[in-house]
Amino acid sequence: MANYQKLTPRAEDYSKWYNELVVKADLAEQSAVRGCMVIKPYGYAIWETIQSELDRRFKEKGVQNAYFPLLIPKSFLSREAEHVEGFAKECAVVTHHRLKNDPNGKGVVVDPDARLDEELIIRPTSETIIWSTYKNWISSYRDLPILCNQWCNVMRWEMRTRLFLRTAEFLWQEGHTAHATKEEAEDYARTMLDVYADFAENIMAIPVVKGVKSPNERFAGALNTYCIEAMMQDGKALQAGTSHFLGQNFAKSFDVQFLSKENKYEYVWATSWGVSTRLMGALIMTHSDDNGLVLPPHLAPIQVVIVPIFKKEEDLQKLMEKLSPLAASLKARGIRVKVDTSDKSTPGYKFADYELKGIPVRLAMGGRDLENGTIEIARRDTLSKETISMEGIEEKIVALLEEIQKNCYTKAMAYRTANTRECNSYEEFKEEIKKGGFLLCHWDGTAETEERIKEETKATIRCIPLDALPGFKQEEGKCMVTSKPSKGRVVFAIAY
Amino acid sequence: MANYQKLTPRAEDYSKWYNELVVKADLAEQSAVRGCMVIKPYGYAIWETIQSELDRRFKEKGVQNAYFPLLIPKSFLSREAEHVEGFAKECAVVTHHRLKNDPNGKGVVVDPDARLDEELIIRPTSETIIWSTYKNWISSYRDLPILCNQWCNVMRWEMRTRLFLRTAEFLWQEGHTAHATKEEAEDYARTMLDVYADFAENIMAIPVVKGVKSPNERFAGALNTYCIEAMMQDGKALQAGTSHFLGQNFAKSFDVQFLSKENKYEYVWATSWGVSTRLMGALIMTHSDDNGLVLPPHLAPIQVVIVPIFKKEEDLQKLMEKLSPLAASLKARGIRVKVDTSDKSTPGYKFADYELKGIPVRLAMGGRDLENGTIEIARRDTLSKETISMEGIEEKIVALLEEIQKNCYTKAMAYRTANTRECNSYEEFKEEIKKGGFLLCHWDGTAETEERIKEETKATIRCIPLDALPGFKQEEGKCMVTSKPSKGRVVFAIAY
Repeated sequence: MANYQKLTPRAEDYSKWYNELVVKADLAEQSAVRGCMVIKPYGYAIWETIQSELDRRFKEKGVQNAYFPLLIPKSFLSREAEHVEGFAKECAVVTHHRLKNDPNGKGVVVDPDARLDEELIIRPTSETIIWSTYKNWISSYRDLPILCNQWCNVMRWEMRTRLFLRTAEFLWQEGHTAHATKEEAEDYARTMLDVYADFAENIMAIPVVKGVKSPNERFAGALNTYCIEAMMQDGKALQAGTSHFLGQNFAKSFDVQFLSKENKYEYVWATSWGVSTRLMGALIMTHSDDNGLVLPPHLAPIQVVIVPIFKKEEDLQKLMEKLSPLAASLKARGIRVKVDTSDKSTPGYKFADYELKGIPVRLAMGGRDLENGTIEIARRDTLSKETISMEGIEEKIVALLEEIQKNCYTKAMAYRTANTRECNSYEEFKEEIKKGGFLLCHWDGTAETEERIKEETKATIRCIPLDALPGFKQEEGKCMVTSKPSKGRVVFAIAY
Repeated sequence: MANYQKLTPRAEDYSKWYNELVVKADLAEQSAVRGCMVIKPYGYAIWETIQSELDRRFKEKGVQNAYFPLLIPKSFLSREAEHVEGFAKECAVVTHHRLKNDPNGKGVVVDPDARLDEELIIRPTSETIIWSTYKNWISSYRDLPILCNQWCNVMRWEMRTRLFLRTAEFLWQEGHTAHATKEEAEDYARTMLDVYADFAENIMAIPVVKGVKSPNERFAGALNTYCIEAMMQDGKALQAGTSHFLGQNFAKSFDVQFLSKENKYEYVWATSWGVSTRLMGALIMTHSDDNGLVLPPHLAPIQVVIVPIFKKEEDLQKLMEKLSPLAASLKARGIRVKVDTSDKSTPGYKFADYELKGIPVRLAMGGRDLENGTIEIARRDTLSKETISMEGIEEKIVALLEEIQKNCYTKAMAYRTANTRECNSYEEFKEEIKKGGFLLCHWDGTAETEERIKEETKATIRCIPLDALPGFKQEEGKCMVTSKPSKGRVVFAIAY
């Protein structure tokens, strides 16, 4: 049973609020294994909606799902030089393949005779094992493009973990495509960025800035990393998805060539792109409030909950004569409905629980409503409620769900805009960055300047935006630190 | 590109036929990691159909999906004594969490300073980690039942592997339920067995025998293992799914108690149940023929393929004036259709490829068909084809798909029945078992007799059937080996 001591308010301790919300709303919890989480049924149901919405969009772009091995031979990681620098270090290493009964007592021990010839790494990402596979799939331009995705678990041995935001094991999808030309690969990386942005904005109701990473922040092994960046309620940035143009790096490392239409052998061009259970963190920190989770209706596993208010079984039966047909007719309209007739807890407890879990619309009907032909309707995003006539209620709910969806986005966008500002001097920047938000600044394009800013302020370049942010314009200028020329403002922020 | 050298015929070498089919039909292949397979897009698309059909059935029974950690602390495995005997030995052991650059040269080596305090095991199954989690979820009868499932990867270090049938890593679902009473848990284990049998028979078109395992063949830690057993075309048995009644074993090992309605602390009752990518092996070996895969329509990612026969672009355009509306109207009926307008390969090559891939219905239209208002329709299960009028073609195809589905099942059932026989003496048994198939025999119920039979003939008790097999009856008798009393015939076979 959830505990209805209130959440720590965001204003008091944002980080504590987040940790409490994740656990109390039954989204996830720490497991017995350091840094690995258990995703609880309610949290997983949201992840399933994320999966199905993304999967449909991928398939519309020609992507097919496949599955590649969990384990990667250690030697594969060192094939692509930059990749190993970026990834190989903190990871789970399998060295043995057998346990045996402890000869000195109870339990089991690792069997020293079962040492592997070559250690295996639990995938931190799958470029290497996939490109070693693509080598066998590709011989001619006729075999291209290959557009594969996999939904799977990956592992990176993080030292400090937080539920959803940074865990040793996490779930994600990773797409890996192979193309005959540079242009096609670059286009595809951009196409998938657009898919992510569309999904983030229309399903998750999270406004995102589409951009390119600075060379410092690129994926290890990529020529270009595109990303979508979101702003959380505490003014920090969260990278919500990335799409990499990998050039021919992995094709060269794994010797993947194809015979072109012109009958020449050429290296294959690659992209990879992924989003993870980190999106759950973005979801929580974009919309939720001190009462708990707020879910945009397009993502909510339960969009409408119906609570009859009753004391006696016969009262419940009378209420259900009205509520059962209502539930059925909402379901027939494709709405995800739950009717809660349980007598295990009080209506007040139920209301608090559904608020904590972020159900967008709550309907409640008691004896007086039954007499009056009315019902109480409460919306989670604004916490407002009113008693309305049952007449035409279905249409009102359909419209209300769309209104809530739109409101979640509008509110998040207003917050982002209010916390995005231009900043023209480094002195000003150092003060402004303490307040959080996105700072749009001129930068000279060098790694040195970027690193100096990071060291001195902890702020990083989240991205070089592809388009001007609404309300701002792109323009040339001079770097706020070095006064060297800058082609346009980039987005600085403190990031998760 | 697939290679159209024919498959080795089944009669010549069944095992070779299977291995070739899996690879040539683009279902799966060996990876660079010993014993781990790559599931290719076409194979994975079939797995996705399996997943969505099962997942829907699970949810109808109240099951919710969740996700538990990939890694299990070594000490957890020894908590349940029988469980560790059955499972802990051949598994992937994570001992370190970091690599570092090789100080003596190129590449990376395991960092000896990053040894874990306690080794972690890649889950071979998740009872232990899940019951350690349930301990925190359960305090009162109000928290029960818990009905969780996860779709995930698991790993068992198999020495001899075969694609889909036995691989070190495989994909599966594992359901884990917690109940307040013994009766409810046993019922639930039986309910899930029925779900599996319904799915196997109605979607996969695989007839199965529902039964109980003998104590020898039980899951490690279970009080009772229910199973569905199928017969492959070579007469061998394949276990297609299991559902375990675990009693209070795991609750006791992880100290999971609840306060009952009567205000007493009691241990929780458990079930677990799973099916895996092994089902892909069952699918192939039940229906396929020397030309390749045969897919029952309910499971086929593509149910109907439409191939226009053309030489010039303008011919294709004319054909598509008829075929595009046909494809659209089939899709509107919920049929999964592919139209193949590619000019990369000849019609003959395409026909062979779609046969190899088991597409249930193939439509082909050429110039003469266009003039005559006809189309060629070929069914994969019987390899028959005819030219029919386009009039009312949609209804014919809808009916044909159902007919093929039924035929796949009927054919498999006829094969099973023809290869199932009663056997009353052990001498006869030793000869008969060499011919393969299911032998229905009396057995005295002892592990000794079972083991003797296994040693001398390699045959095992596949199950004690819950119901008499069609065409046979249940009756008491005497053990074929010891002449001791037997309550009923059990199913013996050589198994995969």
